[in-house]
Amino acid sequence: MTTTSSTNAAESIQEQGDPVDDTRAFRRALGQFATGVTVMTTTVSERQVGMAVNSFAAVSLDPPLVSWSIRNESRSLNAFARGEHFAVNVLADDQVETSALFSRPQENAFDNVSWNPGIHGDPILNDAIAHFECTVEATHEGGDHVIIIGRVNKFTRLSGAPLVFFAGQYRIAKEHPRVELTSAAPYSSTSGNGDASPLFVSLLKSTEQRMSRLFNEYRDQLGINIAGSRVINLLDDGITSITEIADQALLGESAVEDTLSDFKTRGWVGESPSGDLHLTVSGKSIRGQLLEAATKFSTEKLSQISDSDIQAARRVLVHLLTT
Amino acid sequence: MTTTSSTNAAESIQEQGDPVDDTRAFRRALGQFATGVTVMTTTVSERQVGMAVNSFAAVSLDPPLVSWSIRNESRSLNAFARGEHFAVNVLADDQVETSALFSRPQENAFDNVSWNPGIHGDPILNDAIAHFECTVEATHEGGDHVIIIGRVNKFTRLSGAPLVFFAGQYRIAKEHPRVELTSAAPYSSTSGNGDASPLFVSLLKSTEQRMSRLFNEYRDQLGINIAGSRVINLLDDGITSITEIADQALLGESAVEDTLSDFKTRGWVGESPSGDLHLTVSGKSIRGQLLEAATKFSTEKLSQISDSDIQAARRVLVHLLTT
Repeated sequence: MTTTSSTNAAESIQEQGDPVDDTRAFRRALGQFATGVTVMTTTVSERQVGMAVNSFAAVSLDPPLVSWSIRNESRSLNAFARGEHFAVNVLADDQVETSALFSRPQENAFDNVSWNPGIHGDPILNDAIAHFECTVEATHEGGDHVIIIGRVNKFTRLSGAPLVFFAGQYRIAKEHPRVELTSAAPYSSTSGNGDASPLFVSLLKSTEQRMSRLFNEYRDQLGINIAGSRVINLLDDGITSITEIADQALLGESAVEDTLSDFKTRGWVGESPSGDLHLTVSGKSIRGQLLEAATKFSTEKLSQISDSDIQAARRVLVHLLTT
Repeated sequence: MTTTSSTNAAESIQEQGDPVDDTRAFRRALGQFATGVTVMTTTVSERQVGMAVNSFAAVSLDPPLVSWSIRNESRSLNAFARGEHFAVNVLADDQVETSALFSRPQENAFDNVSWNPGIHGDPILNDAIAHFECTVEATHEGGDHVIIIGRVNKFTRLSGAPLVFFAGQYRIAKEHPRVELTSAAPYSSTSGNGDASPLFVSLLKSTEQRMSRLFNEYRDQLGINIAGSRVINLLDDGITSITEIADQALLGESAVEDTLSDFKTRGWVGESPSGDLHLTVSGKSIRGQLLEAATKFSTEKLSQISDSDIQAARRVLVHLLTT
């Protein structure tokens, strides 16, 4: 089974240590655990309160319990930890804006989403893929957070795919490439009526997965991750507000802050006396190297294919993308 | 922003109710929250103990705390909840077998993975993307589970992509399609040196994402999800053990059990007196319909493209996939 030697494992270590010595690095390590994204909602004196949370976890089936945690310093602490009820809204992959909306203090957040009151009066967000309407069962001290245990009085499962958060970035969950290889799923089947068309769509998927993986490995060799390359591109395009970078790059704000702090240390990002950020000459050079790397990667991959085949393939892809 | 009316939300409801009335349906609703996959490890009298867990959550940065929960009936309960230390191993996307290995009672699991003892002597799995070496800080009752709070003494962040679990299925986390549209990432850039090659790789990605989404919508109209279609295909191929179906379809065992129970109700799966499962005539007909749907989908999508273009596109994709 697993045959990677400990030498290889050691080579892939990015950061390591005692969390007490480097809270940011510890947070980045925690970000390696992928999560869904929820918006927790409640009502206090007829006022709706909501916050985006990714520390949600299932605890117990019978009795039905779930948990999450809230910062001691959160201005919504009392609303949730001393409240009697709350609702969990599990966000769909097209609800990035909803997550961003509830990640920041904003007075009128509920004016900007579609919702209805649930059985306890708490806002139930439409378009979510699951709701759990809870009463507060217990709270526990958890360092700089309070752990809230909810008893689920009503669950709702809706159709849709999940919004995923990993390494500070919004993602989507895709079928595992291994399924393509091991399962006789119709989507990838070559059996049936002998028509080769299903194979084309399957081929498209397998090829994209391979290219995506190879390109990520290629870029990693430059010592820069996807989040980093996005931040560099946006800075070069003149976008310098952390909030706006986060929104456009689909990153969490702390991931943007982390990246900017790292880039300042590397000398890629400078800050004016008034606090405005800009890409330095070194930073611009890195963007150039990233573009070169992408071009070189693609050129290498396509180098042995005739121009006419590439043009034909391009026509097919554009057709499938646009009609 | 969100404009879907509550009518649409109501239409997309799959299941709803009081968890006490239907524990399985409640579990399916909980499965809408995507998670990473961890293997928790510890050592008891020099014997290694491990179990796959997806209830992991970050709790606190300072002090550094994490949480997870373990069934009261787990045979590893004492090892973890009454132990003094444990390690969290966050699995990479290519560690499906490792997850499956630690999802079932198996005496020699640690003979089949590559590991080294950590600072507390607990097994640290190589090839994971993060490790958290913890001492047990507290335990709390949590219905049919015990919630374990760990204090992290050492963290390690490694490179790699996460294994994701959603709706009972192993998945991978992919870039959000929105990033393709909003960010000037080099991978999708048309700027640079005017070489159109980077655009080809980006086109491949965008097209695949669109086809995948359209096909999922298409199949959903048959009232069957990806998990269901895989189970049907494997049954038809003569694979009838729940464990083997789970392994080959990259599903959790409870998702397979759920699906089989549903298919028995629908009359698609029968059970012999000796307990062997088989696809009924109705079940075989459903597989036929799925194949037809996939073929029809692909045929429709490619119908307006010339055969020579399709063949050329196929050559390009095969080349990219295999060289």
